[in-house]
Amino acid sequence: MSKLPQYSDILDAASVLKGKAVHTPLISNAILNDRVGGQVFLKPECLQRTGSFKFRGAYNALSNVGAAGKERGIVACSSGNHAQGVAEAARLLGYDATIIMPHDAPELKKQRTARSGAKIIEYDRYNQDREELTEQHAEETGAILVHPYENFHVVAGQGTVGLEACQDLKAQGLQADHFLVCAGGGGLMAGITLAAKEVFPDIMVHPVEPEGHDDQRRSHEANQRLGDNAKTPSLCDAILTPMPGEMSFAICQGSLGEGLVVSDAQALEAVAFAYNELKLVVEPGGAVTLAALLSGKLDVKGKTVLATLSGGNIDAPVMAQALGI
Amino acid sequence: MSKLPQYSDILDAASVLKGKAVHTPLISNAILNDRVGGQVFLKPECLQRTGSFKFRGAYNALSNVGAAGKERGIVACSSGNHAQGVAEAARLLGYDATIIMPHDAPELKKQRTARSGAKIIEYDRYNQDREELTEQHAEETGAILVHPYENFHVVAGQGTVGLEACQDLKAQGLQADHFLVCAGGGGLMAGITLAAKEVFPDIMVHPVEPEGHDDQRRSHEANQRLGDNAKTPSLCDAILTPMPGEMSFAICQGSLGEGLVVSDAQALEAVAFAYNELKLVVEPGGAVTLAALLSGKLDVKGKTVLATLSGGNIDAPVMAQALGI
Repeated sequence: MSKLPQYSDILDAASVLKGKAVHTPLISNAILNDRVGGQVFLKPECLQRTGSFKFRGAYNALSNVGAAGKERGIVACSSGNHAQGVAEAARLLGYDATIIMPHDAPELKKQRTARSGAKIIEYDRYNQDREELTEQHAEETGAILVHPYENFHVVAGQGTVGLEACQDLKAQGLQADHFLVCAGGGGLMAGITLAAKEVFPDIMVHPVEPEGHDDQRRSHEANQRLGDNAKTPSLCDAILTPMPGEMSFAICQGSLGEGLVVSDAQALEAVAFAYNELKLVVEPGGAVTLAALLSGKLDVKGKTVLATLSGGNIDAPVMAQALGI
Repeated sequence: MSKLPQYSDILDAASVLKGKAVHTPLISNAILNDRVGGQVFLKPECLQRTGSFKFRGAYNALSNVGAAGKERGIVACSSGNHAQGVAEAARLLGYDATIIMPHDAPELKKQRTARSGAKIIEYDRYNQDREELTEQHAEETGAILVHPYENFHVVAGQGTVGLEACQDLKAQGLQADHFLVCAGGGGLMAGITLAAKEVFPDIMVHPVEPEGHDDQRRSHEANQRLGDNAKTPSLCDAILTPMPGEMSFAICQGSLGEGLVVSDAQALEAVAFAYNELKLVVEPGGAVTLAALLSGKLDVKGKTVLATLSGGNIDAPVMAQALGI
């Protein structure tokens, strides 16, 4: 395995991202706090450039590629949020980008990736291996592969979510007991773990996943990387990955809190809560943390809790379903 | 006319609101900036407690009522956002509240007012005088009337929107050329004018209104308070008031920038832009500033611009109309 990022790499990423990524605020809400009996601070990365935290890792990684980026171009595989992040970072840096996307990725995510000027190649999520396809494309074209979570600078970039959240909370004179993180391959969770444990050594970081796709929970319980058995779809498209990343698993191994699991229905309830009460547009995969809090998956009474709302790129019919319209 | 609030009253209001109201962030968005050619910072009061800035003025006013609030109760008239602000402030302070609301106020606003425990009395917006009704109720019951904009502490409370926005911008080393404000009776605009002119003496504050309801623009051009001729409805229910408030007119007289006017269609486009690009839920009346920017009502090329997104309490069918779903 390649070298693992450290806390100092997150500080470096923060410098690279200054003025490029949005320093998203912490959001607190009286109704949410009353309901869970604790003090919750949400980190709404739906307000991030491209509508998800993925821009952070992508821009940091592409910036670190240097001159080779312009010469060779970039290739990435993604169901949509990493796709947009890479496409937009490439546009800003003047690189060509090709994105390998599942054919059933949300329409909105395909459109938003295309408008940043990236070329899109579709594949069948259930019958083709995306890693193989992407590596093959990189070999054939010479493009530089930017993996969504097996990448030093991507993980460091995502870590700035945790850095900002913890530093902003500390500036309010508070410290966090728990940090709930939407988890797919684990890049965000790994970056947040590195940052959060530095600022608040006793914090518990919890992966939150959709039912049937709880490979992070099972892997960290078993202390070995286990794959998803489920081939069932989920509305939480943003966080459906076949197994925890090697890099993120190594960073988080032995240091995570309990993994939490929510149903699609609970994720949709959280989408509706975010819309109605927080006035935020959040996609199901970005709302699983809020879903876990609202459905009482973790007792946070009297606790101070950070939670990511990791993205807001939701197709209109899914929002309509969540709102019952 | 009663005494007018000063800058120091806004600082007092900020102390009263600390820990009660949300210090909302400034939001910037690359797509918006590219489109208008300037640097725009949005103040999303949709993220405020009760979903609009109105909580600020209401909580400040009710706090300043003191013991009489518990003894006599509160009465207010409002199409919905002041209603929710007063109802929630009353709940927090342990006062009884009665709200006089138009029969055609958005359902959502009625529900959210009722859930804070307020009693609602409906009236006919087109055939009854709400001021008369409210004063009559106050006389009959002894309840303390909290007017949505003809109230010293309400205006001072709304001014904290401007105070936060300007101080936060200044902390980034920037200064604002323009401040676009959603304007109904003008309480928010007056409070913002007091705060903004103190922090940035050369700033231009612009009222933004819906077509047919541009009484602020016409009044400040004519240098006298003029009523709305239009009896036509507008989707911008939050900012439909019969004429500028006496207090807000006196505060802003002679010191405003050009008044801007947008159509309902432009307001809906802004609602859709906020949803799709900013991932914020904003109601039409709260999005008129963004509508003015998107439709080029003011040349802001090379300028630094603040703009309120004053509320997010939008009925589902109106959002569906904006999004074309």
